[in-house]
Amino acid sequence: MVVNETDMKDFIYYAPTEVVFGKCSEEQVASLVKKYGGHKVLVHYGGGSAVRSGLLDKICGILKEGGIEAVLLGGVVPNPRLSKVHEGIELCRREGVDFILSIGGGSVIDSAKAIACGVLYEGEVWDFYEGKADAAAYLPMGCVLTIPAAGSEMSDSSVITNEDGDIKTGYSNNLSRQKFAIMNPERTYTLPPYQTAAGVTDIMMHTMERYFSHDDDMTLTDAVAEALLCTMKDSIFTVLKDPRNYRARAQIMWGGSIAHNDLTGCGTTGDWATHQLEHELSAMFDATHGAGLAAIWPSWARYVYRENVGRFVRFAVNVMGIRNDYTDPEGTALKGIEAMERFYHAIGMPTSIQELIGKDITEAEIEEMVEKCTHGYTCTQGRFKVLSADDIRRIYLMAAGLM
Amino acid sequence: MVVNETDMKDFIYYAPTEVVFGKCSEEQVASLVKKYGGHKVLVHYGGGSAVRSGLLDKICGILKEGGIEAVLLGGVVPNPRLSKVHEGIELCRREGVDFILSIGGGSVIDSAKAIACGVLYEGEVWDFYEGKADAAAYLPMGCVLTIPAAGSEMSDSSVITNEDGDIKTGYSNNLSRQKFAIMNPERTYTLPPYQTAAGVTDIMMHTMERYFSHDDDMTLTDAVAEALLCTMKDSIFTVLKDPRNYRARAQIMWGGSIAHNDLTGCGTTGDWATHQLEHELSAMFDATHGAGLAAIWPSWARYVYRENVGRFVRFAVNVMGIRNDYTDPEGTALKGIEAMERFYHAIGMPTSIQELIGKDITEAEIEEMVEKCTHGYTCTQGRFKVLSADDIRRIYLMAAGLM
Repeated sequence: MVVNETDMKDFIYYAPTEVVFGKCSEEQVASLVKKYGGHKVLVHYGGGSAVRSGLLDKICGILKEGGIEAVLLGGVVPNPRLSKVHEGIELCRREGVDFILSIGGGSVIDSAKAIACGVLYEGEVWDFYEGKADAAAYLPMGCVLTIPAAGSEMSDSSVITNEDGDIKTGYSNNLSRQKFAIMNPERTYTLPPYQTAAGVTDIMMHTMERYFSHDDDMTLTDAVAEALLCTMKDSIFTVLKDPRNYRARAQIMWGGSIAHNDLTGCGTTGDWATHQLEHELSAMFDATHGAGLAAIWPSWARYVYRENVGRFVRFAVNVMGIRNDYTDPEGTALKGIEAMERFYHAIGMPTSIQELIGKDITEAEIEEMVEKCTHGYTCTQGRFKVLSADDIRRIYLMAAGLM
Repeated sequence: MVVNETDMKDFIYYAPTEVVFGKCSEEQVASLVKKYGGHKVLVHYGGGSAVRSGLLDKICGILKEGGIEAVLLGGVVPNPRLSKVHEGIELCRREGVDFILSIGGGSVIDSAKAIACGVLYEGEVWDFYEGKADAAAYLPMGCVLTIPAAGSEMSDSSVITNEDGDIKTGYSNNLSRQKFAIMNPERTYTLPPYQTAAGVTDIMMHTMERYFSHDDDMTLTDAVAEALLCTMKDSIFTVLKDPRNYRARAQIMWGGSIAHNDLTGCGTTGDWATHQLEHELSAMFDATHGAGLAAIWPSWARYVYRENVGRFVRFAVNVMGIRNDYTDPEGTALKGIEAMERFYHAIGMPTSIQELIGKDITEAEIEEMVEKCTHGYTCTQGRFKVLSADDIRRIYLMAAGLM
C-alpha cells in the first residue's frame, strides 16, 4: 500500500498513570501505594513548603496508618541536581525501598525518576542522561502533585542538572511513568503569582512545542491543543486575581497533565527548540524554567514563523483571538506573536533574557550557551525549523536585545 | 476543610491502554501480545469482513511468525450475544488460552471482555452484568480496531445481550481495559456510509452524554469535548464524500477512542439516558446502536433542555455554530437541537423510531421498553434530568411521533 507522504504521522499514545483528582484525593495515598506494590516507601520532597503546609506530615500519617514504612528524603531544588539523585539511590539501596512517592512538582518527580532507575542499575545513572545506556527497570513511583507546570506526573521524561559542568539534560523512558498521580488543586492555593504564571507558561509551552509543526493533518489534536491553550489563558488571570479559586486552579492543574502526557502531540512532530534553548539559560543562571521559556519563545517565533505561516496564523486566530487579515497572513501571524508577548507581560513573565535574569547577558555567555546547546557545535535543535549553531546564536541575541 | 458544593466533582482518570496508531501499526501485533504476557491467544472476530479483507490472515501470520499460538473464534454479531460469550469461555478453558486478541469493533471487544472475566470466574458470567458479583480478574486483552464507534478499545465497559429475554446490559470494570489497541485508519476505508455515520453518531454521543451535565465547572473538559464534537462533525462529511480519505478517517478513529476513555468526562457527571433508552430499542429491533441514538436524542433533548438552558445554548453556539440570540436563550437552545437533527439527516441517520426501524412502533412495544428500561418500574434513568418511567414513556412517544 502506498504511503502518502503528506499523511499524518503514525503515533503511540501511552498514558497509563492513574490520576486521582480532587479535594479528597490525598486520603487515598496509602491504598494507592499498596495497589501498586509498595511496602517501604521513599518519600521524596523539595524545600520547606511541603513541611510548612503540613502536607508531608499528613501524607506520612496516612502511610503509617496504612502500615507502610516511610524513609524521608527532602531538599530537592528547582533544576534538580545529580548529587541529590546519588543521595537518593544510596538511601534506597541501604533501606531496601521498593516504591518512591514524590510530594512536590516537576523537580521532585524528575529527581525521583532518576533515583528509580539508578537504584536498579549497576552503572552510573548519568549514563542514561548522556545517552550511553537505556534503563531497563524502574522502581514503581507515585506522586502527590503540588505545582502544576512540568507535567512530569504523566510524562515519560525527566530533566536533571549535573553540577559538574552545569549540564542540564533530559531523558525519556516509558517505564518512568508514575503509577498514580494525586492532584488536589487546593494544594496550589499558596503558590506565589510568579511561580503560578511560570507554571502556566510551561504548561502552554508543552503544547505549543507540539503544536508548531509541519504536520497539519491531525486536526483533532490541533483542536484539543487550542482548547487547552485557551483554557489556560483564561484561567491564569482568574487565579492571579483570586488565588483560592478552586475552579481555575483545577483547570491549570489538569491542564498541566494533559499538556504533557502526549495527548496534544498525537500525530504531530514536536519542535522542542524553545525548551532546549531555555535549558541552557536556566542551567547557567538558575532561572525559573517557565519564565525562561517566555524569555525565549517570542524570539524563536519571529525567527521561524516563515517556515509555516499558516500555522502561526491559526495560532493567532484560534488561540490569541486575533482577527484574520486574509490579505496579510504574515501580518496576522506576527500579531499573534505580539499578542503572546502582551499575554506574558500581563501575567508577569519576561519576554527577554534581561528581564529574566535582571542584568545584561554577555556575548561570551551566549556563546557558551550555543556551544552547550549544540553539544560542542555537533548537533542541531528543533524541527519546525532545524536550528544550526548560527540560528541558535541569532535567537539568543534577539532574546537578549543584541540583534 | 469546607467543600464548596458548587465546586467541580472529584474524578479518577485512568486510561492505561497503549494505543499504536497508523499505517504500520498491525505489524506490531506479535510483539505487543508478547509484551503483555500472551503465549496462546484467542483470536476473536465478527462476521466476514475481517476474513474478506485479509486482515485475519495477516494477523494470524504475524502471530505465527512471532511464535504465538492462536485459537480462532469468529461469528460475533452486533449487539453481541451471551451465548457466544459462553462458547468463548469454554474454548479458552479447553485450550488454555492466556490472552484474547479482538479483531473488529465494539461488539467483538465487548464480547472479549465478557469472555476474559468469565474464564477466570467459577460462577455464571452474566452475574457481573446483572450486578450480582464483581469480576476480580480478567485475562489480558488487546485489539485490532476496525470500526470506530463504541470506544470499547479504551473504555472500561462492555454491553452484552442475553437472548433469554432480549436483555441488553452493560458492565464496567477497570480491569477490562485493553492492554493495547492497534488502530490503522486504512482498515476503515471499506466501512459502508451507514455504519460510518452510525459510528460517528455513537462517538459524538459518548461525549454528549458527558457534556450535558449540571457540572459547569470543568471548563477544560468542556473545551476538549467541543473540540472533539466539532472535529467529528467536520470529518464525517469528508469521509462520506471520499471514503479513502486517510486524514478524516484518522480523526474519526482517534476521536472514537478519546470520546469514551473518560477524557471528556473529567469532573462532570454523565447522563447516559439516551444510551439506556436506545439499548432497549436495539435489543427489541436489533437496530444499529448509533442510528438508534440519533432516533432518540432529539426527543430527549427537547424533553430535558429546560433543566439547564445555558448548557444547551453553549452546545448550540460552540458545537452547532448557531449565533447566540442573547435575548432568547431558549430559542438558541432549540435551534441547536434542530441543527443537530439536520446534521443527523445530512449524514443519513434517522431522527425518529419510525425512520430507524422502517415501520410504526406500537404503544405496547413502547410500554415493554419502558418496563425494561426501568427494570420493571423500579429505577430511573439519567442525571441531567432524572427520568421516571413516565418521563421515559413520553420521550419514546415523542421519538415515535405519537406525542
